Amino acid sequence: MEGIEVGRKMSEVTIIFQPDGKRVQVEQESSVLSAALKAGIDLISICSGKGSCGKCKVIVDEVAAVNAVTLEELEILTPEEVDKSVRLACFTRVSSDVTIKVPEYSRTGKQRFQIEGIETPVHLDPTVKKYYLELEAPTLEDPRCDADRVINAVQNVGNVTDLFVNLNLLKTLARKLRENDWKFIAILWKNEIIDIEPGDRTSRLFGYAVDIGTTKLAGYLIDLSSGRVAAADSLMNPQVPYGEDIISRLNHPEQNKLQQAVCEGINQILEMLLERTGVKSQEIYEMTAVGNTVMHHLFLGIDPLYLGRAPYPPVVRNSIAVPASDLKININPNGKILVLPTIAGFVGADTVGVILAMEIHKKDELSLVVDIGTNTEIVLGNKEQLTAVSCASGPAFEGAHIKFGMRAASGAIEKIVIVPETLDVIVQTIDSKPPVGICGSGMIDLVAEMLKAGIIGVGGIFKRDLDNPRIREVENVKEFVVVPASESGTQAEITFSQKDVSQIILAKAAIHTGIKLLFKRQNIKKEDVAVLFVAGAFGSHINKESARMIGIFPEIDLDKIVFVGNAAGTGARMCLVSESEKVLAEEMSKFTQYLELGIDPDFQKVFLNSNIIPYADLDEFPEMSQVLKDAGNYPEVPPPKF
Amino acid sequence: MEGIEVGRKMSEVTIIFQPDGKRVQVEQESSVLSAALKAGIDLISICSGKGSCGKCKVIVDEVAAVNAVTLEELEILTPEEVDKSVRLACFTRVSSDVTIKVPEYSRTGKQRFQIEGIETPVHLDPTVKKYYLELEAPTLEDPRCDADRVINAVQNVGNVTDLFVNLNLLKTLARKLRENDWKFIAILWKNEIIDIEPGDRTSRLFGYAVDIGTTKLAGYLIDLSSGRVAAADSLMNPQVPYGEDIISRLNHPEQNKLQQAVCEGINQILEMLLERTGVKSQEIYEMTAVGNTVMHHLFLGIDPLYLGRAPYPPVVRNSIAVPASDLKININPNGKILVLPTIAGFVGADTVGVILAMEIHKKDELSLVVDIGTNTEIVLGNKEQLTAVSCASGPAFEGAHIKFGMRAASGAIEKIVIVPETLDVIVQTIDSKPPVGICGSGMIDLVAEMLKAGIIGVGGIFKRDLDNPRIREVENVKEFVVVPASESGTQAEITFSQKDVSQIILAKAAIHTGIKLLFKRQNIKKEDVAVLFVAGAFGSHINKESARMIGIFPEIDLDKIVFVGNAAGTGARMCLVSESEKVLAEEMSKFTQYLELGIDPDFQKVFLNSNIIPYADLDEFPEMSQVLKDAGNYPEVPPPKF
Repeated sequence: MEGIEVGRKMSEVTIIFQPDGKRVQVEQESSVLSAALKAGIDLISICSGKGSCGKCKVIVDEVAAVNAVTLEELEILTPEEVDKSVRLACFTRVSSDVTIKVPEYSRTGKQRFQIEGIETPVHLDPTVKKYYLELEAPTLEDPRCDADRVINAVQNVGNVTDLFVNLNLLKTLARKLRENDWKFIAILWKNEIIDIEPGDRTSRLFGYAVDIGTTKLAGYLIDLSSGRVAAADSLMNPQVPYGEDIISRLNHPEQNKLQQAVCEGINQILEMLLERTGVKSQEIYEMTAVGNTVMHHLFLGIDPLYLGRAPYPPVVRNSIAVPASDLKININPNGKILVLPTIAGFVGADTVGVILAMEIHKKDELSLVVDIGTNTEIVLGNKEQLTAVSCASGPAFEGAHIKFGMRAASGAIEKIVIVPETLDVIVQTIDSKPPVGICGSGMIDLVAEMLKAGIIGVGGIFKRDLDNPRIREVENVKEFVVVPASESGTQAEITFSQKDVSQIILAKAAIHTGIKLLFKRQNIKKEDVAVLFVAGAFGSHINKESARMIGIFPEIDLDKIVFVGNAAGTGARMCLVSESEKVLAEEMSKFTQYLELGIDPDFQKVFLNSNIIPYADLDEFPEMSQVLKDAGNYPEVPPPKF
Repeated sequence: MEGIEVGRKMSEVTIIFQPDGKRVQVEQESSVLSAALKAGIDLISICSGKGSCGKCKVIVDEVAAVNAVTLEELEILTPEEVDKSVRLACFTRVSSDVTIKVPEYSRTGKQRFQIEGIETPVHLDPTVKKYYLELEAPTLEDPRCDADRVINAVQNVGNVTDLFVNLNLLKTLARKLRENDWKFIAILWKNEIIDIEPGDRTSRLFGYAVDIGTTKLAGYLIDLSSGRVAAADSLMNPQVPYGEDIISRLNHPEQNKLQQAVCEGINQILEMLLERTGVKSQEIYEMTAVGNTVMHHLFLGIDPLYLGRAPYPPVVRNSIAVPASDLKININPNGKILVLPTIAGFVGADTVGVILAMEIHKKDELSLVVDIGTNTEIVLGNKEQLTAVSCASGPAFEGAHIKFGMRAASGAIEKIVIVPETLDVIVQTIDSKPPVGICGSGMIDLVAEMLKAGIIGVGGIFKRDLDNPRIREVENVKEFVVVPASESGTQAEITFSQKDVSQIILAKAAIHTGIKLLFKRQNIKKEDVAVLFVAGAFGSHINKESARMIGIFPEIDLDKIVFVGNAAGTGARMCLVSESEKVLAEEMSKFTQYLELGIDPDFQKVFLNSNIIPYADLDEFPEMSQVLKDAGNYPEVPPPKF
C-alpha cells in the first residue's frame, strides 16, 4: 500500500493478512474471503464461498472483531480448531479492524505444473510471414497510395492475394515507411499486412501459445523460424480465487473480472518468457490459445452461463481470431489471437489441441485419449471416425471434497505403498517435504493399496475391523490413518475416510462410464485399442497400475498406456507454427462427433456398475482379479450388477 | 462550468468570453485564440493562428491584462480598430484575468449549407439485411452451439454463405436468444450476423450517410426499407476551429483531437435526426461516409501528413469498413462504418460519390463534373474512360484572403449588379440582412460586373480612374466601394480591392487550367461536352453567367450547366441503399484515372493564360467577348498569351 492512507469511510474496516502483511480496507460485515480476494491472497476456496468445501481456513487474532462461529463451521471444524480461533473465511464477517493469519495449508501456493507436452513434428508454415522490401518513393508520375505500394510489393515476392493493410497500421504507415527510407520488413498474418518494422530481421519471428487450464495457465514462447520452444512457463490461473471449479466460474456475476484476470495471467507468463529470452513483445505477432469451452468463452468475454445448464450448448464452436489489442494481450498490438475451435459444451479447444498433438485422426489403429481433470474428456477413434465424450469426474483428484485432499503442491503425498501385513504406510511427497495432504495421484495409489491390503472391498466399503491402530471409527465413519500426527507437516494426523474413498470411486466411475459407453456405442472391445494416451498435467504422475487397478483405465497392457503431458498445449503450438494445422483444427472440431452420455439408455446402469472397483463385471479385469485373489481380497459373492 | 471552481494553479488566468459568458482557465501568456478553442468559441481562424488571415478579431476589455499591440497587428488593423481595443486573437497573450468580446463578424456562425443533392434512383439492395427467425431450443439430442444454430437458420431463409457471428454479439448471444424465447430478428451486414433484436420488425431498417466536408458535415438518415431520406441536417465541421483549410488540418499536431471532433459532429447531427424521427440509434446498422482524402484520413485516424507534401500520396485508396464502436459513432455498436474509396491525394471519396450520383460512368455522352471548393475536383469522361484532376483553387470563394470575404452566412452579399453608367451597386444578401461581407457567389458576380462595367479590364487590372466616388486608391492600391458605411451592417464600408480581384482571378485560373488541360489531354473540345455538372453546396448559388463570364466554366450553353447540389452525399446514400453501388464505388476508384496537373509541360503556360478574364485566347469565349465589346470593354490590344 506504499504507506499512503487513502481517505477511509466510516463504515470501513482494515484487515491485515499475515504472514503476507497485506492490508486491505473493506466495508464492515464483509467476509474475510472477499477481503482476501481483494487483497490478492491465494486463499483456497474450491466452492467459491458457498461454505461447502471447508478449505478456506484462517486464524483470527481477535475474536471480538468478527462474528461468532456459525453452525455450518462447527460441522466442518474440529473442536481443537475452534479453540485455536480457526475459522472458515467465507463465514467470517468482520466488524472492526483485525489481523487474519492464513496458514500454508489454506493457500493455493505454487503448484507443480507439467507444462511439457509431447513434441509432434509439423511442417513449418507459420501464419505470420515476413517480407523484406525496398520500395521506390512515390513521385508525381507514380503517386499510388502508400498501402497499394506496399501491397503490390508483397504480391511481387510472396504468393498472397487479396492483401489488405490493418487499419491500425494505416494510421502510422506513412511515417513508418518514410522513417525507414522505404526499406523495411512487412509482417503478414494471412492476407493482412499487420505491421512493418525496420531493418532486415526476416529471421526473427515469434509466437506465443497458451493453454488456459481451469487451474493453471501454460505459456510457450515459440521461435516461428524454427518451430522450437524458446521458453515456457506456467502460472496458477488467476481466476482460481473467483472459484476453483468451472461451475462457480461460469456462475460468477462479474464475468469481466474473470476475463481480465486470465488475460493478466497470460501477460504475466509472457513477461517472464520475454525477460528470460530477450525477445520483445513487439516481435510476437500471433498467439494461439486452447482451453475447455468455459475457459474459451471467458477468455473471449463470451457469457458462459448456459454451459452450466442442460443441454450445455456452447455459444460458439468455430475458431476465432481477435486483434491482440482487443483482449489487452501484450504481444504486438496489431498481432492476432487465434482461439482454437471447440467441439461441445464440455469438449473444448483443449481437446482439439490434444487430437492434433496425438494425430489420432491420421492413424489406422484405434487410439483412446483420456484427458483427466475436473472434467475428463475422452476421445476414441482413428482416421475414419472420432468420437468424444465428457465425464463429470469432479474435483476430487484436485483435492476437493476430500478431507486431506490437496493439489499437487509442495508436501503433497503423491505416491503411497501400504504393507498388507502391518498396514504400515510408505509415502512419497512432492519436494520430499513433510506430508501436509494427499494429491490426486496419491489418492489413486491409496485406494488401490487399501484394496490390495484388504482394508476396503471391491465395493469400496471398509471391510476390516478396528484390528489395527491405523483403522479407526469417528462418528460412525471408518477412516484410515495415512500419516500419524508425529510424522505430519501439520502436526495433525492425515486420514482417509470411507467418505473420501467414496469420492474417489465416484470420480473413477464417471471416467469408467465414459470409456465403457464410448466402447459400446462404437462397438469396440478394449483389446481393439492400440494405444491409450493419458493427457493433462495430472496424468503424468499417476501410477498406471494403480489407476488401472481401480478401473480409471480399462484393463489393457500397461505398455499401451502412454503419458503425453500437456498435449493440449502442444496442439496450440502446432497451430502457431503451421497454417495447415489451423485448418485441421477447424476440420477436427467438426469431424469429431460429440456423444452425450446423459441420453444413453444404459448410462445409469453402467455408472452404478462402475462404482465397483475396478468394475462390477470383474471378468473384464482378469489381471486385477488375480491380484485381489492373491491378496485374499477377491469377493466370494460376486458384486451386484445393476 | 456548473459553478464548480476546480483548484486553480498560480500560473493560470481566467478568460471570460462574451457575449457567450463562457469561462476558461489557461496558462499565463496563452493566446486568446488557443483559449477560444479550449472554450469552444466559434472564432474564425482561417490561417490557424499564423497571423496572416486577420479574421480572428476580438475586443479586449482591459488592455493591461494582455500584451501590447504587435507590429503585425498594426499592419492588419485600422487605427479605429486599435482605438477600440480590437486585437487579433492569435497575437494577443493574456497575463491576468480578462474579459474578451467576440464580435459577430469574427464568428464562423451558422452557415447556409446545402445538404440536398440530386436524387439518383438505385436498385434497393442494402448491405444490412434482417431475417425473422424462430428456432428450436437446444436439447441433449441436438446440443449444437448457439452461433451455429442461428447461422444454419439464416442459411435456410437467406442466400448467404460463409456466415459468422460478430464477436461482440457472441458475448451476449446466449442470453439474448433465450430472453426472446428463440424468436428474434437476425441482422446481417454482408455475411456477418451483427445483432439480434426481439420481435418482428423486419420492416424497420435504417442507415446513416455522411458527407464529411472540410467546412460542413451533412448527415442523412435513410430508411433502408424504402431507400428514402427520413431526415437530413448539417453542421459546421467541428474541426474548423483547428484550422479552416485542409493544409492547416493535416499539419495540426493533435490529429486525435481532429478525429474526435469530426466524430462528435457526426454524432451531433445523428442525434438531431433521431430526435426528429423517433428512430433509435440501435436501429441504425450502417453508416457510409464520403469526404476528400484528408477528411477521409482524419476520420479514420490515419495520419494525413504526407497528403500535404508532394507528390501528395494518400495512405490508402480502397474502401474501409470499421466497427462503429471503434470510431465511437453512436449507431448500433456492432454496426459498420463504410468509408468510400478515394482516387488520389486530392481526389477523394467525395468525388467517387459524385461519380456514382451523376452516373457519368454509365453514359455514352461526355460529362464534365466540377466540384468547387478550396480544392476543386474535376472529372471528365463517359463509360469508356474517366479522368480526374484536382486544382488548388484556394479558399478565396470561402472568404479567405479577401478583405471583406466571408462564408455564406447571414448578411453575406450573394448577388451583385453594378449599373455601368453610375457604378451604383445593387446587392442581395443572405437572409436579406444588412450586408456584412461578400460570399463566394457574390464575389464571382462582382468580378463579372466590374468587368462589364469597365472598372477592371480583361487582365483584372483596375482601369478606370478615380472618376467616381466608388473608386478609390488607398496606399497605392485601388479599390471599389461595394457598400458605403451608411448601408453596411458593420457601420463600415465594404470594399473590393485590386488585391481581392487578383485572389478571385487566381482561384478561377486554377479551375480553368484544370478543365483546359483535361480537355487537351483527352483531346476534347468544349463543344463535345454534353453536360457540365456543378456539384457542391457552393455551386448551387453561383450565377452561371457570371461564372462563365470570368472563365470558371468553359463557354458552353448555359442550358448544359446543371447544378446538382451535394452529389457526394447522394453517392454516400446510394452506397448505403445498395450493395452493388458499394462494389461500383470500389471499381470507380480504380477506373478513374488521376491526372497530375503539376507534371503537365503546358501547366505554367495554361495557368498564366487563365489569368485573363475569361482567357487569354478570347476567341474561345465569343459570347463573352461580344458582351465586353457591347460594353466597350473589349481590349484594343489583345491580352498577352504566354
